[in-house]
Amino acid sequence: MPHGPFISLDGIDGTGKSTQCRLLADLFRGWGYAVVVCADPGNTTVGNVLRVLVLGKQHALSLACEALLFMASRAQLTAELIQPALAAGQAVISDRFTLANVVYQGHAGGLDIEELWRVGRLATGGLEPDLTIVLDMPVEVAQARRNRPADRVESRGRDYHERVRAGFLAEAKRRPDRIQVVDASQSIDAVFQQIRALVASRWQPS
Amino acid sequence: MPHGPFISLDGIDGTGKSTQCRLLADLFRGWGYAVVVCADPGNTTVGNVLRVLVLGKQHALSLACEALLFMASRAQLTAELIQPALAAGQAVISDRFTLANVVYQGHAGGLDIEELWRVGRLATGGLEPDLTIVLDMPVEVAQARRNRPADRVESRGRDYHERVRAGFLAEAKRRPDRIQVVDASQSIDAVFQQIRALVASRWQPS
Repeated sequence: MPHGPFISLDGIDGTGKSTQCRLLADLFRGWGYAVVVCADPGNTTVGNVLRVLVLGKQHALSLACEALLFMASRAQLTAELIQPALAAGQAVISDRFTLANVVYQGHAGGLDIEELWRVGRLATGGLEPDLTIVLDMPVEVAQARRNRPADRVESRGRDYHERVRAGFLAEAKRRPDRIQVVDASQSIDAVFQQIRALVASRWQPS
Repeated sequence: MPHGPFISLDGIDGTGKSTQCRLLADLFRGWGYAVVVCADPGNTTVGNVLRVLVLGKQHALSLACEALLFMASRAQLTAELIQPALAAGQAVISDRFTLANVVYQGHAGGLDIEELWRVGRLATGGLEPDLTIVLDMPVEVAQARRNRPADRVESRGRDYHERVRAGFLAEAKRRPDRIQVVDASQSIDAVFQQIRALVASRWQPS
């Protein structure tokens, strides 16, 4: 079925994903698209509850439980918000998507990577972003930029986050048709110009 | 690794699962086992939150979200309660387990059945009950016996619950080494004697 552009931004915390999501949304609006910006997990009533459960520090969750809570929240986000918007021809820009689960609980956590992709397809009914942009920078630079207290996942050690970074790069290498890496250690505008170049050839109206 | 007996009871609602779980626990205690009885979903702090989310009527959940919330709850229940109990040689008796997901969201709901079994293995780290006992009776008899208001899943129509019943029977036919069906339309004691016969040969101390 033809549908609107679906783009996710991902990467380790502190790389400026939410800022670039906003800029990308403005770009698509300027091109005449209706745009939905969402954050995964979240953006549904059940997803907001799950976001607090999985990122808060109240519960000591098993890694599988953590992965499945992210997946459950994504299932609802896809059914309730993303799929209807795409079907209506709108552009959807998501701050994280399935790749984050594959990397955080798979590459960094040790759960089976292929199985996480499969669970992701069950969660989303097979929907995946047309393009995922990974914002990459050294872990220590990203952590120094974080402007709020670390959540439950962010609180893991330096080694874990190095595996997360390496996982994003490995998945991008495996799936260059779907996942592109952008050097996020430059200025906000320089990063945005790289992102703009990645989407313009495909979605900018002529 | 050697571990204690792990038995789940499953079947449509109203077949007397919780009563038979209690009787089965007493039987194993009489045989000298330490016994843990649990209900899936539930029995962990996060599982209790998820149980309310998934069975309550506050949220209109997609079927995939529903399945994944059950899976997430089971992941935590397994890691936090079941696995440690079994490793300590205790008997675990669970009111429902992965089979319920396969039947309710797969056979009755239309999600992919093999994929649900796979997600179940991700959730439990591959752990499955040594024996699952399905309590079977006609849907109309079971519904007449229910002594509390129907939850979100129970509120689905008669056709749905007929598919659930048929799904339990189909899975039992496919996996007779793991899943046994008991006619639950008899008296509590007659049902229990059938269950006792299924477990005695394997776990009654000589």
